[in-house]
Amino acid sequence: MSDRPETPLLNRIAGPADMKGLSDFDLTRLATELRKETIWSVSQTGGHLGAGLGVVEMTVAIHAVFDAPRDKLIWDVSHQCYPHKILTGRRDRMLTIRQKDGLSGFTKRSESPYDPFGAAHSSTSISAAMGFAVARDLGSETVGDAIAVIGDGALSGGMAYEALNHAGHEGTRLIVILNDNEMSIAPPVGAMSSYLSRLYAGQPFQDFKAAAKGAVRMLPEPFQEGAKRAKEMLKGMAVGGTLFEELGFSYVGPIDGHDMDQLLSVLRTVKARADGPILIHAVTQKGKGYAEDRPDRGHATAKFDMITGEQKKAPSNAPSYTKIFAQSLIKEAERDDKIVAITAAMPDGTGLDLFGDRFPKRTFDVGIAEQHGVTFCAGLAAGGMKPFCAIYSTFLQRGYDQIVHDVAIQRLPVRFAIDRAGLVGADGATHAGTFDIGYMSSLPGMVVMAAADEAELVHMVATAVAHDDGPIAFRFPRGEGVGVDLPERGTPLEIGKGRMIAQGERVALLSFGTRLEEVKEAAERLADRGLKPTIADARFAKPLDRDLILQLAADHEALITIEEGAIGGFGSHVAQLLAEEGVFDDGLKFRSMVLPDTFIDQANPHDMYEIAAMNAEHIEAKVLNVLGVKVLEKRA
Amino acid sequence: MSDRPETPLLNRIAGPADMKGLSDFDLTRLATELRKETIWSVSQTGGHLGAGLGVVEMTVAIHAVFDAPRDKLIWDVSHQCYPHKILTGRRDRMLTIRQKDGLSGFTKRSESPYDPFGAAHSSTSISAAMGFAVARDLGSETVGDAIAVIGDGALSGGMAYEALNHAGHEGTRLIVILNDNEMSIAPPVGAMSSYLSRLYAGQPFQDFKAAAKGAVRMLPEPFQEGAKRAKEMLKGMAVGGTLFEELGFSYVGPIDGHDMDQLLSVLRTVKARADGPILIHAVTQKGKGYAEDRPDRGHATAKFDMITGEQKKAPSNAPSYTKIFAQSLIKEAERDDKIVAITAAMPDGTGLDLFGDRFPKRTFDVGIAEQHGVTFCAGLAAGGMKPFCAIYSTFLQRGYDQIVHDVAIQRLPVRFAIDRAGLVGADGATHAGTFDIGYMSSLPGMVVMAAADEAELVHMVATAVAHDDGPIAFRFPRGEGVGVDLPERGTPLEIGKGRMIAQGERVALLSFGTRLEEVKEAAERLADRGLKPTIADARFAKPLDRDLILQLAADHEALITIEEGAIGGFGSHVAQLLAEEGVFDDGLKFRSMVLPDTFIDQANPHDMYEIAAMNAEHIEAKVLNVLGVKVLEKRA
Repeated sequence: MSDRPETPLLNRIAGPADMKGLSDFDLTRLATELRKETIWSVSQTGGHLGAGLGVVEMTVAIHAVFDAPRDKLIWDVSHQCYPHKILTGRRDRMLTIRQKDGLSGFTKRSESPYDPFGAAHSSTSISAAMGFAVARDLGSETVGDAIAVIGDGALSGGMAYEALNHAGHEGTRLIVILNDNEMSIAPPVGAMSSYLSRLYAGQPFQDFKAAAKGAVRMLPEPFQEGAKRAKEMLKGMAVGGTLFEELGFSYVGPIDGHDMDQLLSVLRTVKARADGPILIHAVTQKGKGYAEDRPDRGHATAKFDMITGEQKKAPSNAPSYTKIFAQSLIKEAERDDKIVAITAAMPDGTGLDLFGDRFPKRTFDVGIAEQHGVTFCAGLAAGGMKPFCAIYSTFLQRGYDQIVHDVAIQRLPVRFAIDRAGLVGADGATHAGTFDIGYMSSLPGMVVMAAADEAELVHMVATAVAHDDGPIAFRFPRGEGVGVDLPERGTPLEIGKGRMIAQGERVALLSFGTRLEEVKEAAERLADRGLKPTIADARFAKPLDRDLILQLAADHEALITIEEGAIGGFGSHVAQLLAEEGVFDDGLKFRSMVLPDTFIDQANPHDMYEIAAMNAEHIEAKVLNVLGVKVLEKRA
Repeated sequence: MSDRPETPLLNRIAGPADMKGLSDFDLTRLATELRKETIWSVSQTGGHLGAGLGVVEMTVAIHAVFDAPRDKLIWDVSHQCYPHKILTGRRDRMLTIRQKDGLSGFTKRSESPYDPFGAAHSSTSISAAMGFAVARDLGSETVGDAIAVIGDGALSGGMAYEALNHAGHEGTRLIVILNDNEMSIAPPVGAMSSYLSRLYAGQPFQDFKAAAKGAVRMLPEPFQEGAKRAKEMLKGMAVGGTLFEELGFSYVGPIDGHDMDQLLSVLRTVKARADGPILIHAVTQKGKGYAEDRPDRGHATAKFDMITGEQKKAPSNAPSYTKIFAQSLIKEAERDDKIVAITAAMPDGTGLDLFGDRFPKRTFDVGIAEQHGVTFCAGLAAGGMKPFCAIYSTFLQRGYDQIVHDVAIQRLPVRFAIDRAGLVGADGATHAGTFDIGYMSSLPGMVVMAAADEAELVHMVATAVAHDDGPIAFRFPRGEGVGVDLPERGTPLEIGKGRMIAQGERVALLSFGTRLEEVKEAAERLADRGLKPTIADARFAKPLDRDLILQLAADHEALITIEEGAIGGFGSHVAQLLAEEGVFDDGLKFRSMVLPDTFIDQANPHDMYEIAAMNAEHIEAKVLNVLGVKVLEKRA
């Protein structure tokens, strides 16, 4: 910790209340210290760095001018909340961030009253702020102002537009700060982004400081600094901004989001005079002060050396599922020019950056726009293409209605590559891929696969290419594969057929997905007790391998399904089959191991599955319990 | 059929090819006949009238200028597709519309090559058209132009904005016709709608006709009419439209969407010269020529008398669930000023028009914006209010991620009033409320109820008001209640407790929702055979009434669950409980009756449940089958 920066002013700030007496000069100093502290903190823990560095001055200015927690400050996505956490009483816990039992990497209601609304998925902040603002209007005593800070990338999400449209219609006081850094996770796409660039291209920032200071002299109360003639000033300051004005917002900007004087002046003026929805357009640099020159602006980082910038990552043993997906799809696309790939603003995360390097014209980044992305794929499929829609499980929830209405009902052959399925680790509950098996498998005509290892993933990509008479989905987890040999090219699997892994007796373990490794380990443990379970890999949650499942039920005393998903998925489909076939009538020790009925906070994936009771030891215990084997030594 | 209008020109049109030789004058005559035919047709069948009447001229003009089915014409929502169906070879089947085995009330891929993309939920058309356009760019031989026709109401949906944003970025040729009738189902809300009004307020329509005719004389080929100087003309024609232009679209308009000359001129010019995304802003009147003066512009109608306009509705026996929900909520809101109600552009359909009459300031119509609507509710709840989010089951799919991420993970007390749960009748598969039990019940902390009758609904509204430590949902079907007496005011139910309806023996029928009436009828039939099943109403799919369920299992040879939803819902949760408790180990004849694994086309609800095998006779048969009772007389 020898590199820890000196932060004399920050050391005196236990919460926003301690900032109220500071001069504007000291607030600028505070921002400098806060930036150093943020860099140091993330260098120790890893985490999201670039977004926070872009809003250091904004964070200080908002807390100096507004009165959280009464005023509700909502950070969109909230990757950028680290400086906010440091200023709001959580500095001493920053070294626990994104770790088990530590601070969340996102805002979280249960963590602090200064986090009035949690976020992690994009584009929710204006809707939430609108809820607070209306609650205030209706007499809720606990709510003052509502302030949403939203990035330009998040503005590509449709729900942000829905919220702007509604807020402009209602006309209530609501403050939206557009944090325009031209960079969310990947370089921005979309016409809105180009529009925002044009708003400030080639013209200097307005001199809000002089205008506000001029106004200050005419007013007695410091908190009303800049208030007189504020509305006229706001109007006069605006250059362009018509799009937001057409939607009913007052527009202020663009301003330099790193200039404390500008920020304070504008925020004070807005606080004193805003009488309707207002959008403040602040231009910032993601990664400001540390990672400005890095291609991803330091979006997410491992622990790093503050001097050299070198990241301290553990070496990986096997390539990631994501990379294997991308490589497999590239191979398939080399032979089939109908294959196209679609991402919703996550080219790196989904591996489609690699696909895009190879096939730039067949790769589409639609922005943070999963709804459009899914229906765009449906249109592509209807037009004769073979679209691969690569979206994380948790974000695919955004396109659920489109999957039902545009893909499944029309039986269009869209291929869903569902990455980050199951528990994901440091990103915690908001990013867990928990529900997709259930919500996909309940759809008529949908084929749902899960890869048990990376070789299986290669085959499932080939299966998806070959399956052309309806939609198909394959899910795979975050992280590295298990290290199995990879086939040169995938071979299409027979739809709805699983595979036997090991023939045993008494109990059958039927795995769907990458818990198969844990199942195998459980079997090894059980071998020590003289038990030899049968192991099978279902491969398909839909359609089920009826023959395999019924045979397993007939040949065994007990049948246990295991899947990395919530109730309502694979195990529920198996139970329905067994019930309808009358298998339960005469008795079968059936159990379905699913993710528990709780949202699991961040930890490393192994620990999260420990909490979920889905590791090898839990599978072993389940087998012993079902078979009625007494395990005295375990009950010490 | 004596009132059937004379349509000599229309009678010669078997498909769009037959329109190619018609003069502009004849096309105008054709539109007049098509309007009469549409009115007559809907007078015979009932259905959606107003939307179609608003686009009669547009439909004729598009088919005259473009070349469907090679050119892909996509009607957003597609309430307005009746004239299109008449022109595209389906005139002789119009009298079957929305009936069992008849034409769908929406566009449908399986029905006609002229329906390249089905629709029924709002705001999908630009995304789908974008898919076709890109497929064409990538060499798909079957695709020419892609044309989306979208209403101003549908533009409030976020995915339409996502699609505009992406299309403006890609820059490919794409034609969007904005059908601006200031009226989707209810009067429009949102800043976008106001913006559109301002675009043509107080200024005459541009004289496109003269401009185009001027251009015509300079060109040899009729199909290139208006092509020369077209780009300049388009530019010159645009007045305002900056919002769309800022998003990368060329903007043409506003034009009079009932003036055939204007439509033909503009479409021909666009066809000849558009080299990127273009938006044509056409102003129309919903219900033009028949229902312009009705408050809902003839949105959806029963069969009616063409002269008097009188609708031929069967008298209803009991008030609808929707109305009882609204009345109950009003009563609760009279005692609790924290209650607010939110609809997504369906005030009439959800009964919130009644609530809004009584509590205008506590009623919010967010537009066709379910994503925003759900998170807005989450913000309201975080701000101390008691929001009731009233959305149809099928449309709530649009807000699924927000339910997970903003409501459930944060355990915010949003109350979901899920109307149109189960099969809905004439609107068919796209509107069926099939999946909500599953996708809601898999969420940790969610309470999920279903009303068995209208009195139960009253109690569930009261239960939702009282439940303040997490989210809660109650579902109820389309249509009339069963006629039970209603309590003056609801009494909160104990969370997670079902109720016994009838104590019997051998088999227990555990119903979740309004199949309870069918269960009772099945029991009456079974009584004739000397069987007396136990009947229980689960009330809750989550949390389950463990005591009740385990007792039913213990006391009976067989247990059958019945619900109006897909697999993965109530029955799956019951199966999981029974499995975990080891109930199956020694045998239990368990069956779960759920909606089948198919999308069921429109029919009346009874017939749809017949197809789903979920009426009384099916429940009876299931019982007999499970108990091994031979039913020789039924196997004739």
